[in-house]
Amino acid sequence: MQQQAMGPASTAPAMHDFGGTTYFYTAGSQHARHSPLPAALLPGGHLFHLPHTALMKPKANQPSFFMQDELRLDTLRRQYLLAAQIDPVQHPDIPSEVDNYHTLYPLEPVPRDPKHRSSTFGFITSCYKSISAKDAMAYCLTRIHGFHMVNSKCMLFTDMWKKIQHSNIVQLREVFTTKAFGEHSLVFVHDYHPGAETLMAHHFNNPQQNKDFFEGAAAGKGNKTKPGMVNGPRQHAGLLPESLIWCYVVQLSSALRTIHAAGLACRVMDPTKILITGKSRLRVNCVGIFDVLTFDVNQSNPMALIPQFQQEDLLSLGKVVLALACNSVAGIQREFLQKAMELVTLNYSSDLKNLILYLLTNQGRPKSVNDIMPMIGARFYTQLDAAHMRCDVIEAELAKEVENGRLFRLLCKLGIINDRPGLGLDSDWSETGDRYLLKLFRDYLFHQVTESGEPWIDMAHVVQCLNKVRLFVCLFVSLNNSLFMRSSNQPASRFSLKS
Amino acid sequence: MQQQAMGPASTAPAMHDFGGTTYFYTAGSQHARHSPLPAALLPGGHLFHLPHTALMKPKANQPSFFMQDELRLDTLRRQYLLAAQIDPVQHPDIPSEVDNYHTLYPLEPVPRDPKHRSSTFGFITSCYKSISAKDAMAYCLTRIHGFHMVNSKCMLFTDMWKKIQHSNIVQLREVFTTKAFGEHSLVFVHDYHPGAETLMAHHFNNPQQNKDFFEGAAAGKGNKTKPGMVNGPRQHAGLLPESLIWCYVVQLSSALRTIHAAGLACRVMDPTKILITGKSRLRVNCVGIFDVLTFDVNQSNPMALIPQFQQEDLLSLGKVVLALACNSVAGIQREFLQKAMELVTLNYSSDLKNLILYLLTNQGRPKSVNDIMPMIGARFYTQLDAAHMRCDVIEAELAKEVENGRLFRLLCKLGIINDRPGLGLDSDWSETGDRYLLKLFRDYLFHQVTESGEPWIDMAHVVQCLNKVRLFVCLFVSLNNSLFMRSSNQPASRFSLKS
Repeated sequence: MQQQAMGPASTAPAMHDFGGTTYFYTAGSQHARHSPLPAALLPGGHLFHLPHTALMKPKANQPSFFMQDELRLDTLRRQYLLAAQIDPVQHPDIPSEVDNYHTLYPLEPVPRDPKHRSSTFGFITSCYKSISAKDAMAYCLTRIHGFHMVNSKCMLFTDMWKKIQHSNIVQLREVFTTKAFGEHSLVFVHDYHPGAETLMAHHFNNPQQNKDFFEGAAAGKGNKTKPGMVNGPRQHAGLLPESLIWCYVVQLSSALRTIHAAGLACRVMDPTKILITGKSRLRVNCVGIFDVLTFDVNQSNPMALIPQFQQEDLLSLGKVVLALACNSVAGIQREFLQKAMELVTLNYSSDLKNLILYLLTNQGRPKSVNDIMPMIGARFYTQLDAAHMRCDVIEAELAKEVENGRLFRLLCKLGIINDRPGLGLDSDWSETGDRYLLKLFRDYLFHQVTESGEPWIDMAHVVQCLNKVRLFVCLFVSLNNSLFMRSSNQPASRFSLKS
Repeated sequence: MQQQAMGPASTAPAMHDFGGTTYFYTAGSQHARHSPLPAALLPGGHLFHLPHTALMKPKANQPSFFMQDELRLDTLRRQYLLAAQIDPVQHPDIPSEVDNYHTLYPLEPVPRDPKHRSSTFGFITSCYKSISAKDAMAYCLTRIHGFHMVNSKCMLFTDMWKKIQHSNIVQLREVFTTKAFGEHSLVFVHDYHPGAETLMAHHFNNPQQNKDFFEGAAAGKGNKTKPGMVNGPRQHAGLLPESLIWCYVVQLSSALRTIHAAGLACRVMDPTKILITGKSRLRVNCVGIFDVLTFDVNQSNPMALIPQFQQEDLLSLGKVVLALACNSVAGIQREFLQKAMELVTLNYSSDLKNLILYLLTNQGRPKSVNDIMPMIGARFYTQLDAAHMRCDVIEAELAKEVENGRLFRLLCKLGIINDRPGLGLDSDWSETGDRYLLKLFRDYLFHQVTESGEPWIDMAHVVQCLNKVRLFVCLFVSLNNSLFMRSSNQPASRFSLKS
């Protein structure tokens, strides 16, 4: 009756490979012929899939979430980046330790020309991945070269920034001065997001991109149907899909809203300071740096300029959105502005046009990031749906893997104990008593044979037995030794782990 | 120089246990004394953490996301539920197969009294988890007892429902009629979400909950400061936090918006038909059932009543929100309505009060789910931030586990090949040639000893070596056999896997 009820399952293969993960179906697998399942049906190892993530389809109006293989490769790539180290012999210029941080790894080429200053901050900067000796986690260090005048009053700002935890902001963790690089340097410690690219590199890597369109237009030779055919992830007429632009708008406005609500200003709303990870997740990087670099000790109220900077943030957001809509940084140049707005009007919804106009033009009164919410409107729902689905997909992947770590550790423990004849006379390691049981269990686990004595390989059997080991250990403790010595005298092939 | 550069790492412990997952730090671990790392520093196994999830703190105004242990336990619990089976001998009333579905598992007690009809659908219903023979995935079957008249025209509705994929709707997959239960039955197949509870069971499990408050009020004995102190997840004065209610409002309105935009009506916006998984994720269940059960063949246009049903959906949403705000289903009874609105006014924001008023009162014109977006306002940002953070946490968990499955499979393969003296004469299994190499590798992996011959246990060594196996396999193929026979003559302890 039981076998009958499970009939359809036994027609399913015992092992499946989904996106690189091998799946084991214990119920009704071929192993049943060796040891039938007990009457009380307990779940064995990994079992059935859930359709709500397995059958999920990407939606046309949403930025697509990762497929499972892509997620796996992306995770591995980020782990690789997280672990990357340089050979210190070949990089004598990089110190072995800076304050509490070690294992520095340059994330961008170190500028050797002292005239090569960051266009944003006006100082030479360099950027390193580094490991904190305090918590063994990876952080990103931004070094401001040759900067040593820091008034402790500016820590007012850094203390405020450190408290801002938001999914679209790279969190500031620490600021310190150091001479470890051979000169006075100021170092900002932010979270490290491996594999992150700047929005500039991701979308505007070709400075000529779509520029022809604008320059052609300026020279009266514009051709509306063919605006620049340079490579890049663009849809019709070389433009980004509107859903992606809104996805960015929601994230960037979310970051600005949190920053402004905390009484701060972002000041780095720029394609070179916005990081993108995965397909469409944005994070504003380098927050808090400007507040320290431009700190004016003569200013009685350091917060006085914040409202003005907040207005500049909104203007900068408008420029970022316009550049994305034109898919060219040329679009934000003053002389091309009218042409760029025409492009937006022709290709995108009026909501997007109104949003850009609101952010770029003088409204006669202070603008607020809250005013753009009605323009986003129902697109919030789309973003939330996409985020929830991405959660579901990753959770389903995690569910597949959650027990593998435990099973792996069990096999390691078994491997360390079994078959150590070299330690034959050491009573803690010899193959007697408990260790003999474990050797028999190893044989039972891996060395199954068919009735004719041929090796029988069934991963489902291995997983199922290891999952029963917890029960086995309970038995081991509760039953008396003599009972176990009896079982252990049975031949290996008949040693049973019935729970 | 290299060792010096890695100095700080070697002070870190070689193995860490975070939330049940053991972590291996290969760089600078004690293993270095046995085989120093090669000059080109490649990442070994798992390495450093990322701070942006490890240091994340739950926010006060957001429903908290899972902590890591909680996530793991929840995943295991759901896998257990997914795999649960009944003993068919003790449940002869449950058929072994229903159409393409097998291994039925009742999700609620099967009503034996024929008068016990579902208060929602007006029929006897029962609900089973089941596995599809087509794709081996788990689904939820809802059986309508004794229903066999189905006009094929109603498939118009089910076809529309099947296309609706949304993170807050339990997707309908199939509808079929069957006699497998011994009588004509109609079966609806929806996605199965293990561990889901109804909103009714989660928040309103005690029917007396907060009811005293309303009944006392009706009898003129109301005490505003002490509304019902029955157990339940409530804040001050026994009420739910407003952020949680908004979290629900956003999700339910998101579901309604999608359904209405598809030209359908939900018709099951009821606490007994809304499922909650995890801390706060809602999904509307049983969609599409009403459309089939109440299908009227005499109606020339089956879509004619949809606008009316959509208005009823919004009224039902208002009742759900009011019940949540009062934390009692008593609040939605007509005689307590005024008292309930007073409670909302006293304890919650005017936005929530206005939302409930809008949904419950006649506006003189058709209401639309889009009208409530301005009342939700910036709370969309909060929800998105929470969803993104939850994604980050789960992704960080996945990153820890992603390689464990592969390592586990490698150890299984090794275990299956090694030490099979019983097959001594079979040249495919004996311990010669390639198999001898693998035995030596096994010894190298697990049987390390210190200089004095004591066993040396270092999980980091095991993980690092297994991660090099890919390189080893490449070598194995590219180098000639004789070279390898030479290495294999070395004693096991000196066999080296330098890549």
